[in-house]
Amino acid sequence: MSSEDEMVVTPWKVAGKVDYEKLIRQFGTQPLTKEILEKLKKYAGSLHYLIRREFFFCHRDFDWILNLYEKGEKFVLYTGRGPSGPVHLGHLLPWIFTKHLQDVFGAKLYFQMTDDEKFLLHHNFTIEKSVGYTYDNALDVIAIGFDKKKTKIISDVKNIKALYEISIKIAKHVNFSVVRAVFGFEESTNIGLIFFPAVQAAPCFLESVLTGKKVPCLIPAAIDQDPYWRVTRDVAPKLGFYKPAQIHSKFLPGLGKGGKMSASQPETCIFTTDPPEVAEKKVFNAFTGGQPTAEEQRRLGGNPEVCTVYQYMFYLFEEDDKKVRELWENCKSGRIICGECKSILAKKVKDFLVEHQRRREKARNIVDEYFLEI
Amino acid sequence: MSSEDEMVVTPWKVAGKVDYEKLIRQFGTQPLTKEILEKLKKYAGSLHYLIRREFFFCHRDFDWILNLYEKGEKFVLYTGRGPSGPVHLGHLLPWIFTKHLQDVFGAKLYFQMTDDEKFLLHHNFTIEKSVGYTYDNALDVIAIGFDKKKTKIISDVKNIKALYEISIKIAKHVNFSVVRAVFGFEESTNIGLIFFPAVQAAPCFLESVLTGKKVPCLIPAAIDQDPYWRVTRDVAPKLGFYKPAQIHSKFLPGLGKGGKMSASQPETCIFTTDPPEVAEKKVFNAFTGGQPTAEEQRRLGGNPEVCTVYQYMFYLFEEDDKKVRELWENCKSGRIICGECKSILAKKVKDFLVEHQRRREKARNIVDEYFLEI
Repeated sequence: MSSEDEMVVTPWKVAGKVDYEKLIRQFGTQPLTKEILEKLKKYAGSLHYLIRREFFFCHRDFDWILNLYEKGEKFVLYTGRGPSGPVHLGHLLPWIFTKHLQDVFGAKLYFQMTDDEKFLLHHNFTIEKSVGYTYDNALDVIAIGFDKKKTKIISDVKNIKALYEISIKIAKHVNFSVVRAVFGFEESTNIGLIFFPAVQAAPCFLESVLTGKKVPCLIPAAIDQDPYWRVTRDVAPKLGFYKPAQIHSKFLPGLGKGGKMSASQPETCIFTTDPPEVAEKKVFNAFTGGQPTAEEQRRLGGNPEVCTVYQYMFYLFEEDDKKVRELWENCKSGRIICGECKSILAKKVKDFLVEHQRRREKARNIVDEYFLEI
Repeated sequence: MSSEDEMVVTPWKVAGKVDYEKLIRQFGTQPLTKEILEKLKKYAGSLHYLIRREFFFCHRDFDWILNLYEKGEKFVLYTGRGPSGPVHLGHLLPWIFTKHLQDVFGAKLYFQMTDDEKFLLHHNFTIEKSVGYTYDNALDVIAIGFDKKKTKIISDVKNIKALYEISIKIAKHVNFSVVRAVFGFEESTNIGLIFFPAVQAAPCFLESVLTGKKVPCLIPAAIDQDPYWRVTRDVAPKLGFYKPAQIHSKFLPGLGKGGKMSASQPETCIFTTDPPEVAEKKVFNAFTGGQPTAEEQRRLGGNPEVCTVYQYMFYLFEEDDKKVRELWENCKSGRIICGECKSILAKKVKDFLVEHQRRREKARNIVDEYFLEI
């Protein structure tokens, strides 16, 4: 196998063409069945486009959470971010869907910034740098529009008091063999990273601890975080908590050929703080499924299935199913060529960034109010 | 070798006849030289009996701390306790000497209660139990007479906010190989315990962090804690801190035959909360170096070198060198027999407990003021 074909999905690395069917089998998660989606629709009115387009594509116990909700038991949402740099569009997708869930179910959200982990992971990171990104990235979270009354952002470093007791309760049930097997830790792994899975697990149970009763927790997050939840789910019943439920997303690809959008390849990656013209340029340099010449494209049609521009329209900038299908067909038939398509996307990206950056700046005044007080 | 002869000294277990000379070689610490003691005497006026009697018997960089002090650079003291049960007399000895150092050098003291570790270590411990002992044991610490203005007790669980940033900075430089080699951690060790050495190391640097300048730290503690400081000293320069200096004590033996006083053998162990009559009974049941009959003892003399009663007089209840020598000689020559000797010790133990328990009860009103506010 070439390295491009090898699938590597860990919480630290997503590379190669990701085979999501294989991930479902490998991680032992469940596909989102028609029955589950029907139930979700009952509350959501209509299915969110990130569900319809299978960006969120598998789960654990999401049906159980919906059944409990049906019986009147509210759940909390928990998601997070490793603040190792500026936020890019790929990060926003799970948050957009999380906000949707918050709106539909009136759910409280804990949003964890794992600034301790990022410090421990990156050789050249100071704590100040990690925590700096926590506050910076929080602006993006707030810009998504989460309900201030129902949203608590957690900085591991600043809010460790809220997490440590739960973390050591979890840690007591997790030994080195387990984290070695699950996360690939080695002899050379530092003892902070070895402990960290217990810190990432803690917010699953925070609402239960703070309210003194078992509260179900649903985690909308990218599939690469699943190893954490597997460990957490093993421990939960030993501590008298519900196992956290999960709904997993795919990754937004970068604008280059293949792979996840990654901050380590800035030219293929649109940051929320990119000046709109810079983002426009990135779109115009994007890898597409087009033919070598406009003439050939008109004649043979393009390949939207490998086109990053199409994927951006599909996952982020065209919620209308009819329009997105038209785009596909127009590409396939050669009625639209890459330059035109890029212009459409560039316009949408610029409009999005202008608005997001406006909300992001506004968030500076209220960012502290979103953080957990403990 | 029989198991009684095997020396085992780890932070969790001290068993068998402890060969302190061997420990000095094995741990690579330094004996307290005449020069160092002369310098200490300069400030202390006279040498504390726990130094004179070599209960504190070796060190790392104690001379360096004294030299800095001589040049006008103040140091902080740091010691602690694993709150896994009630305090016994053996625990008090390092604290008594620590108070002496506080008085002599006007030093600030951080006193760490490792309630997280005790929870992580003991299968049947809840966090509530650990933290309960923290507050209970703090009464004993306060009863020793530490200066309230210069003493901060730290509960790892309650004060983790003060320690976590420093702990992860340390943890980043310590990997699993190191803690496996130093502490004997295994695959089956839980990830909380694996991280814990970084938490125990943190108070060494707390004063430096809080004041924003490098402050030397001296740790008076029993020798079994040395592995923690070895790891901490390796990391210190990488973080821009001074290596913590140490002065190490021996262990007060239990009242049974051989071994460290241990809460797991309550009948050989005088707790600070024992009713004086109960303590008296324990003294009368103590293992001595006496002969089988009073007649033989008068004729042959006793063996104070193996006598726990003598050791209690020596290390805790008879500060007067002349009197303790007389006791030795009277025992050796058969002028005093065990019953008499036990009566003397029992009286002293009872008087001590009455006074300690009075101070301990008084401490309840001010215990909160001793805890770190962070």
